[in-house]
Formats: sequence, structure tokens, C-alpha cells
Amino acid sequence: MSQTTDGLEKLKTKLLEIQHLRDAASLLSWDQETYMPTGGGQARADHIATLQTLAHDKFVSPDIEDVLLHHIDPMTGLANSKGTGLDEASQALLRETWRDFSRAKKLPSEFITRLERECSLAQQVWTEARQDNNFATFLPNLRTVVALKYEEVEYLGYTDSPYNTLLDTYEPGATVAQLQPLFTTIREGLVSLLEQIRQSPTPPNDRILYQTYDTDRQLEFGKLVLAKMGYDFSRGRLDLSAHPFTTSFHPTDVRVTTRVFEKDLQSCLFSCIHEGGHGLYEQGLPPGHHGTPLGEALSLGIHESQSRLWENSVGRSRAFWEYFFPLLKDQFPNQLSGINVDTFYAAINTVKPSLIRVEADEVTYNLHIMVRFEIELDVIEKRVGVEDLPDLWRTKMKEYLGVVPERDADGVLQDVHWSFGAFGYFPTYTLGNLYAAMLFNKAGEDLPTLQTDIAQGNLIPLKEWLNHHIHRHGRQFTSKELIQRATGQTLSAEPFLQSLRDKMQEVYGFPA
Amino acid sequence: MSQTTDGLEKLKTKLLEIQHLRDAASLLSWDQETYMPTGGGQARADHIATLQTLAHDKFVSPDIEDVLLHHIDPMTGLANSKGTGLDEASQALLRETWRDFSRAKKLPSEFITRLERECSLAQQVWTEARQDNNFATFLPNLRTVVALKYEEVEYLGYTDSPYNTLLDTYEPGATVAQLQPLFTTIREGLVSLLEQIRQSPTPPNDRILYQTYDTDRQLEFGKLVLAKMGYDFSRGRLDLSAHPFTTSFHPTDVRVTTRVFEKDLQSCLFSCIHEGGHGLYEQGLPPGHHGTPLGEALSLGIHESQSRLWENSVGRSRAFWEYFFPLLKDQFPNQLSGINVDTFYAAINTVKPSLIRVEADEVTYNLHIMVRFEIELDVIEKRVGVEDLPDLWRTKMKEYLGVVPERDADGVLQDVHWSFGAFGYFPTYTLGNLYAAMLFNKAGEDLPTLQTDIAQGNLIPLKEWLNHHIHRHGRQFTSKELIQRATGQTLSAEPFLQSLRDKMQEVYGFPA
Repeated sequence: MSQTTDGLEKLKTKLLEIQHLRDAASLLSWDQETYMPTGGGQARADHIATLQTLAHDKFVSPDIEDVLLHHIDPMTGLANSKGTGLDEASQALLRETWRDFSRAKKLPSEFITRLERECSLAQQVWTEARQDNNFATFLPNLRTVVALKYEEVEYLGYTDSPYNTLLDTYEPGATVAQLQPLFTTIREGLVSLLEQIRQSPTPPNDRILYQTYDTDRQLEFGKLVLAKMGYDFSRGRLDLSAHPFTTSFHPTDVRVTTRVFEKDLQSCLFSCIHEGGHGLYEQGLPPGHHGTPLGEALSLGIHESQSRLWENSVGRSRAFWEYFFPLLKDQFPNQLSGINVDTFYAAINTVKPSLIRVEADEVTYNLHIMVRFEIELDVIEKRVGVEDLPDLWRTKMKEYLGVVPERDADGVLQDVHWSFGAFGYFPTYTLGNLYAAMLFNKAGEDLPTLQTDIAQGNLIPLKEWLNHHIHRHGRQFTSKELIQRATGQTLSAEPFLQSLRDKMQEVYGFPA
Repeated sequence: MSQTTDGLEKLKTKLLEIQHLRDAASLLSWDQETYMPTGGGQARADHIATLQTLAHDKFVSPDIEDVLLHHIDPMTGLANSKGTGLDEASQALLRETWRDFSRAKKLPSEFITRLERECSLAQQVWTEARQDNNFATFLPNLRTVVALKYEEVEYLGYTDSPYNTLLDTYEPGATVAQLQPLFTTIREGLVSLLEQIRQSPTPPNDRILYQTYDTDRQLEFGKLVLAKMGYDFSRGRLDLSAHPFTTSFHPTDVRVTTRVFEKDLQSCLFSCIHEGGHGLYEQGLPPGHHGTPLGEALSLGIHESQSRLWENSVGRSRAFWEYFFPLLKDQFPNQLSGINVDTFYAAINTVKPSLIRVEADEVTYNLHIMVRFEIELDVIEKRVGVEDLPDLWRTKMKEYLGVVPERDADGVLQDVHWSFGAFGYFPTYTLGNLYAAMLFNKAGEDLPTLQTDIAQGNLIPLKEWLNHHIHRHGRQFTSKELIQRATGQTLSAEPFLQSLRDKMQEVYGFPA
């Protein structure tokens, strides 16, 4: 074995040990959201902090730095003369590990501790402030968190905009300059589509979704859909939590959660499908690369593309319900008596501008994101102070969605993200929608029987297409390269807007 | 702050970090037994191994050794001139940490890895061998495990018998010389009691326990009893697992498990009470000492005393069912129609020599332990070879219990312990029974209304007595000291034998 390859094996062994600490922390977090007794919260926070600190300290060690610097030019982050002798996958592994390492190394331990403590505190204050509808109590904490994000950018440095550095944490390579024209196109397209929808003489009715639906049966149906999607229950499970999420400790143990309301058929159903999309990605990562970037999901945007593809392109499609509606009717014969698949399909695609992002429909959802993106960009580029956010929120909601929250709890206080410092996160939701539409279109080209397969409940060819084109690659390629390889295209809003126009034209009956 | 106290604070900080790794490993194990998908097993083993190895490496570090040697005389394991300046609790903390440290330090890392690997392997082979009723397939692995135990004793050294070193792992301070006369007394007492029981003209009948009992209702009743015992569900939970167990990650998060069979009322009920006793101990440890020996349970024998006291002295008492039988009858009115509390009390105290330890009644249980203790002592003192164990097992079962297994699966292969190297573990079950009887007697003296409290369902005074006399002390005292302080007595079999004679005389109606 050459010395070079030997160093790589040593690196992988160290990365795997660090990964085990992070996997354990993930299980502790999962348990906290699902089964932990209420009294265990403080001890649990201590446990997770110890594991994360150990993982961080082990990661920024000189041992790891030595192996990286042996193969990587620290100026470019790319392979040096020794590194270029390695195969493509090894070079990608080194490049991505260097990316994580150099970011981690730039942040002082003391800063990370301060950031985590303040964010944890701010999140607690936010929880109460939202309950009490009192932005003023949250304001000092939000101000502290924003100041810490400025400080973070100072350590990490930036090009063009400080926001780019934060965005890059969640979506490597994405920039404001790239997002702004894209988002303008989307905003204009959606606002105009929304206007057409408002003028429809034959809007659908979604009342049937809000009857009484037994929660056990809803969960059974959610499991059935997950199983048909190819989510492997021998390597996963479905539990309940306050907010649905997906977590993974290894591709052989990937867990999803949902929530279920008796008076709302959509919540459990679509969170199962959405989280199932995330789950398939995690189950589809290469287990042999676990612990290295090649065994990790690429970015939040690509992750979200998987959940959105399944939730919207599949789960809200006419073809999907061709197969599943009769099964749903078997579960709820009284509630769905006399309803046909067309009526049901229209009901689940009803568009209604509303105040709360997580309850938004497919059309207005991205307008909610625009509001957040523009506000956080203004904050990070220091054009507005945090005390102005409630008003700014109302102004933008009025402009884009035509609705205005009366209470801050339904406005600027609704999302948890800013309280724990996740500035630059929201755009990845929209990027996920764009990627999803592009990928689903291409899958349809590559799989001529895709629509009939779906209509027969055979979702496996689609799952395997995603396994092949997305999941198995981990972080080997950049998002741009991955999407280019999978679809032959570069990122664009048009496929997303077109698919939405087509669907809305069908549901709302306006001229194409 | 003096340099001495400062060193102690540093030690506690390090111990707490190590404890967090062990707590995380415990949660991973709990999850493995309760909710983990089947496919996650291999990755889980890797995760736990990483956490345990890290914890071990951090524990045997020079940092910790320095602080210990600053205060402890390594020859005696007791405080040196600097250590004696500290308060009693700090001296105990140092003494117990030194005990753990000096054992851990003597075992080479390479040996621990080998031991864990071979034991893990042997346990898998044992599982199959028991299923196939084939001792021969397990024999080579058992031989390897025994050889490793010899090797372990060589590293650790021993006084009088190599078995003492293994015993000391689970029950610090216990010796063969102490156990043998005690166990002879118990064996003779039980064999003679069993003879009286055999000759009873009016044996009770336990058929009513094996009707059909809805499993959800059984679990509800188990939870009710746990809550009445003072087990705090805001700091714990009850789940299902193949083998009942208790685990703790901190006194604020202590979990118990049970199993439930539709055709057996006793299994779920008494495992809930038994594990509840363990759970109360863990919930009663001082949270401020978490991570140090002062926040840890003292020994397996003391732990088992808590579970046995609740299971047998309380849960199988006439007074307990005075209160709980009407509640049980509310849950199962058809099954228990026409049954009164005396009949029920007799049924749950029926004695029947049987082949399987974990299903044994209160009288024959310790005879099962005698069989195992004598055999493992012979093995570790090299008087018999492992190939002779099936025959030896049959001979001793015949002699002590009067029953002989036809299949090794119901004989020498029934317990998992030896497969993972737990030689010296079995005697702690019997020690637990002896301690339990002593403690329950003394609680009855200290609390004059104990029996009437129990008969009214008020179990809290007993729980608080145990909190005060046992739980809160952690490992501050030795077992001998703790029992002496709590009861004013030294360890003896008589209270246990007398309580059993009294109960059997009542149930089987033979002359006192």
C-alpha cells in the first residue's frame, strides 16, 4: 500500500470514529423528540453537548490536518500534485473533508460554545415569545444571535455578500447573485399564477379533508404509502413527534416521524410522504462510505428536492391517487363516500394564501420563502435592524400573498430557524422545489412508463432512478454537477413553474 | 480553592465527560432492545464499541491517574496524607474511582478488545446452540471464554481463589469463603422447606393465573403499580423488550421494560414490580454526583435487593393484594370472578420445582443459583472441564430441585451469562434476596404502620425509607457498611429463610 493511500485509510478511520459520535448524538436527539420523559431534558442537553464537542475537537485535530495538507492545496481546496494521483472518488472525499475542516478550523472553540449557548437560550425565549405573541421579549435574543452571525462571517470571510457565507453552510456554492434573478422569476410567476387562481370561476373545495379521521387508521395508511415508496422498514421506522423530521444513524437505520390530527387528513399523509422522500435519500447513501463525505447527503437543497418530489410531484399527482384513492376509501368509507378521485385530487391541490408557511399549499409556499429570504438578506447585509422585522414582514406578506398577520405569532415569530441562528437556510426549501421539478421531468423522460407505473402503485422504478442518479453519489459531485449529470440541464425555475401552471390549469379550470 | 480540591474538581469534570459517553452508549443499547429496526444491528454494535472504547481510553489516562495518586496510596487504595485532609464523601469518591481505575489499568486494551469480540461471538453461537439444543456447537466458544476469564484473573491477580476476582467485579468485597457457608445454610434450609411443601395436604392452585388476560390491560395495571410505588414517570418510562431490564442515563431518565403474555398474568406484573425496584434505586441516586461513584449504584447484589424487596417482600405479600386485588379484579372481572384475595395470594406463591431459573418461584429460585454457583466455581478453580457441564448440571438439578432437564436447552444452555463471560454474576441474585429480607424487616421496625400502609396502597413511606437508607448513598459505603448502617446487622441468611418459612406455612398450611 502506498503511503498516500495509507494516509487516506487513516483519515477514513478517524472520520468514522467522529461520525459514530455524531450518530450517537443524532439518536439522542431523536429520542428527545419521540420517547424521552419530560424530566430528562437538562441531562440530555449535556449528553449531546459532550458528544458534539468531542466530535468537533477530534475533527480539527492536527492528525486530520496533516493528511489533508498532504493531498490538498489549502489555497484552492483542490488536490495538489500528490492528491491528483488518486482516483476521482478519493479526490472528492479529500476536497469535501477539507471544505468541512477549513470551516471548522476557522471558528474558535470559544465562539462555538458561545454560539450554541446563545442559540439554545434564544430558542427557549422564542418558544415563549411565540406562545405569548410578544416579539419584544425575543428581540434582545434575536439581536444577540444576529451579532453572532456577523461574527461568524468575520471568522469565515466572504465574497460579495456576508449572506453568501451563511448560505454556503447549507447549500455549498449557492450565492445571492445566483438566487436573486431566479427568485424574482419565481415570485413573478407565482404572483401571476395566484391571480389567475383567484379569478377562477370553478375553485375546488377541500372541506372533505377536514372531517373526523381516526388517527390510527391515518398512521396505517401513512405506513402503507411509505412501504410502497420503497422506504425499507427493516432499516427504519415511523414515530410521532411535535414536528415531523427524518434522522439517520447509518443507511441501515433511518427514521422518519410524523404528526397526526383527527380533523385533518392532509397533515399526517403528506408529512409521511415528505419525510419518506428524505428517508429514501438517507437509506440510499452508500453504507461503505459512512463517516466520509461520500456517504453524506449533498446539501439541504438536494435533500429537500427528494422530499418535495415525493410530496408534490408524486403525492399530489392525479396518477398517484388513481391507485391510492381506492385504498384510502377502504380505510375511510364513510368520510369519502360519494367522492371520486378527481374531486379528491382537486381538494388536495386547493390553493389558499394563508399566514403559516408550514401549512401552505404548493403555489403559495415559495412566496413564504421569498418573504423570509428578502428579510434575512436585508438583516445580514445590515440594511434593516431586527426591531423593524415585524413591520417588514407584514408589508411583504401583503405584497406577495395578499394576507397580513394580525399577530406576530402568526407573522415574524412563526418559524424557529432564526432563533437558533439558521440564517441562509430558507432558500434551500425553494431550491428543493426547483430541483424536484427538474428531476421528476427527467425521470419521466428516462422512464417512459413512469406515469402508468405510478397509477398502478408501482413507485419502485422512480425510487431506483433517484437511487441511481442522486442518492448513491453522496457528496462526490457539487449540486451543479449532480443536477447537470442527472438532468442534462442547469438550475432553472421554469420546470417548476410550468408543472405548477399545468396542475393549476387542470384543478382550477382556467385556460392554459 | 486549595490545590487539592481543585484537583478533585478537575477529576469530577473528566469523570462526567466519560459518564456522558457511557450514558449515550446505554441509550443506544436501550434503543437496540426496544425500537431499533432489525437492519440496524451491525452499525449499532460499531457505535457502542466506539463510545465504550473512547470512555475506557479517557478513563485510564495519565490526567486521571495523577489526581488519584495525589490523594491515594496505591498499595492500600485508601487516602494518603493529602487525601485524609478531605471530607468523607470526597475520600469515598477517590477510593472508589481508584478501585475502578486500577482494575481498568491492569487490563491491556488489546485484551479488552479480544474479550469483547470473543464474548460477542460466543453469545451469538450460544443463541443458536440453545435454539438447536446443541451444546457441542457452543463448547469451543465456551472454552475460549473461560480461557479469557483465566487470563483476566492473571492480569488482575487474586487472593485465595481466582473466582474471588471475578465475583469482586459484580459484588465488591464478596469472597468464596464468605459465600460458601451462607449458601450451604440457604441450600439446606430451602431443600428442607421444599420437602415440607411437597408433603402439604392442601397445596394452592395457580390455574387462574393462566387464563386469557388482555395484554393492554396487563400493561395498564403494571403502570398503575409502578406509579403507586413512587416510580416517577416524568423521569422514566415503561417499554416492551424480549427480556425485561432497567437502564439509566441520569437520575432524571431511568427506563424500565417488561414483557407481556396473554396466557400468563404473572410475567408482566412481576417484571414491572421487579424492574420498578431497580428503577427506584436509579431514580434515587443523587443527581449532583452523576458521573462519580457517589452517583452510582453500589453493587449488583444491592441493586438486586431493591428489585427483590419490591417483587417478593411487597409484591407477593398478602397486604399488597389487600389493596391491589380489587383493582386487578376491576380490570379482569370475568377471569377473577369468584376469586378472593386469599386464593389469589396463594396462587402467586405456589411453589413448583421447575427447570428454568427465570420462571422459578421464590423458594426454588435460589436453588437454581446454587447449581450455577457451584458449577462456575468448579470451572474457575479448574476442577472440571467445560465439556462436563451438561452432566454436572443434571446431577445438581436432581440433587437440589428433584427435576432433571431432558434437553440441554432447558439445562446448561438456558442462561446467557456464561456466553458473555459473566462468571461470578449469579451469586449476586441470591445476595440480593438476603439483603432484601434484612432491609424489609428493618423497614418494618422503623415504620410501625408499614403493613397497614401497604394494605392501603400507600407504598411511599417504604420507597422513602429506601431512598434514605440505600439510594442516596451511591457508592459512598461498602455493601457491608451500608447494610450495617441500614439494619444494624451483618449479612445473614436467616431473615430470608424465616420470611419464606412464614409465608409458606401460611400458603401451604403446614405446622409452623
